[in-house]
Amino acid sequence: MHGEQIYEGKAKQLFLTKDKNTLIQRFKNSVTALNGERMSEYAGKGAVNNAISTFCFRRLEEAGVRTHFLSHENATDMRVQRLEMIPLEIVVRNVVAGSLAKRTGLAEGTEVSPAIVETYFKRDDLQDPILADTHVFMLAILRSEQLADVKRHALKVNETMQAIFRDAGMLLVDFKLEFGWDTNERLVLGDEFSPDTARLWDIKTGKKLDKDVYRNDLGDLMDVYREVARRLDVSIPD
Amino acid sequence: MHGEQIYEGKAKQLFLTKDKNTLIQRFKNSVTALNGERMSEYAGKGAVNNAISTFCFRRLEEAGVRTHFLSHENATDMRVQRLEMIPLEIVVRNVVAGSLAKRTGLAEGTEVSPAIVETYFKRDDLQDPILADTHVFMLAILRSEQLADVKRHALKVNETMQAIFRDAGMLLVDFKLEFGWDTNERLVLGDEFSPDTARLWDIKTGKKLDKDVYRNDLGDLMDVYREVARRLDVSIPD
Repeated sequence: MHGEQIYEGKAKQLFLTKDKNTLIQRFKNSVTALNGERMSEYAGKGAVNNAISTFCFRRLEEAGVRTHFLSHENATDMRVQRLEMIPLEIVVRNVVAGSLAKRTGLAEGTEVSPAIVETYFKRDDLQDPILADTHVFMLAILRSEQLADVKRHALKVNETMQAIFRDAGMLLVDFKLEFGWDTNERLVLGDEFSPDTARLWDIKTGKKLDKDVYRNDLGDLMDVYREVARRLDVSIPD
Repeated sequence: MHGEQIYEGKAKQLFLTKDKNTLIQRFKNSVTALNGERMSEYAGKGAVNNAISTFCFRRLEEAGVRTHFLSHENATDMRVQRLEMIPLEIVVRNVVAGSLAKRTGLAEGTEVSPAIVETYFKRDDLQDPILADTHVFMLAILRSEQLADVKRHALKVNETMQAIFRDAGMLLVDFKLEFGWDTNERLVLGDEFSPDTARLWDIKTGKKLDKDVYRNDLGDLMDVYREVARRLDVSIPD
């Protein structure tokens, strides 16, 4: 029960509904790496990520973070508030991994304390380059106080989700968020929160429980994603 | 009349002198591009860049900017104050060019107003990656108030040099600076200011008068560097 598709990304689709302020967000089974150069399909991945994201958005709402989540519709779909999206990927890092290791020369696994917030320009054609604050202002993406607000929100999400994953035996290494504005020009967390967009390591063994399993060919992606769901006590609909 | 070489970079060497707080900075004839993947020699380039840098440092000192310049020693050498260098390349941009065009998708030649200051990690092994402020703090390179001081100094240099190049018919598109601390922990401008480290365009024709002539194979590099010297009324010793 949804209308026209208005967006298709690498892992999700958005559809209109009868209510102009509401969208259906569908989680796809596809997974990509290297900015889309590699792509695969995993049966059931959409449903697992929809379930995990639903869980995370609910916990964030309980913690006082405004999110676009409205309801879990069916296995792969959630109903969300329509936002005017900010064209930034907001990355929060608690531990050095991925591009931060390459940028700084610090060893993967080095603790980042306090956590840092990075901004990337959401532009596939430019390969999502990192931006300094000065570029964000220069490109008129956000004003100074708006960027500060985004960073505060991102750190609040971090505080909440770090505790939830820690209780489930996982280290929240880093994650990507996307924010937008609602019709009242309030900042709202959009997009998703899943092992596609967060690095999760087993607290004891360091075993990777996220998309790096696909990026680095470390095993069966769905086994790992289902383990994350199980540890969070999230049930996956058939 | 100098002692042991303590540093050799792509375009300069540093030698000890009898005074432990003083170095000889020698400008080499080599020119490189693509982080050193391409390299060539141009007879006379060291002398031209030494003369232009001498001119620029003198003008900056007159404008109240503290620099490491002490005296012009001979064709290729200047005497400088020894600094504890900050491992950052500070880039000031008045017009979109080079990596800023790739990062933002803005057309080369777009005005950047107000000017922006970027920081790059001076680490050849990492290919001098760009850093956001948060990385500078995380790496303990500078504290917040020190970085603010560096940016203020960089913008003061920009104000001074923009006017000087404008009067000589050149647009100061962007440039790279390196700063250090003197023995009294005062911030001092080090390194050089030359067409190797600044983009200069003819104000009327847009003709490139800098190292991009080498990077992009646009003509004879020495003709262009000598033209910059001539326009600034800088004489080149034989």
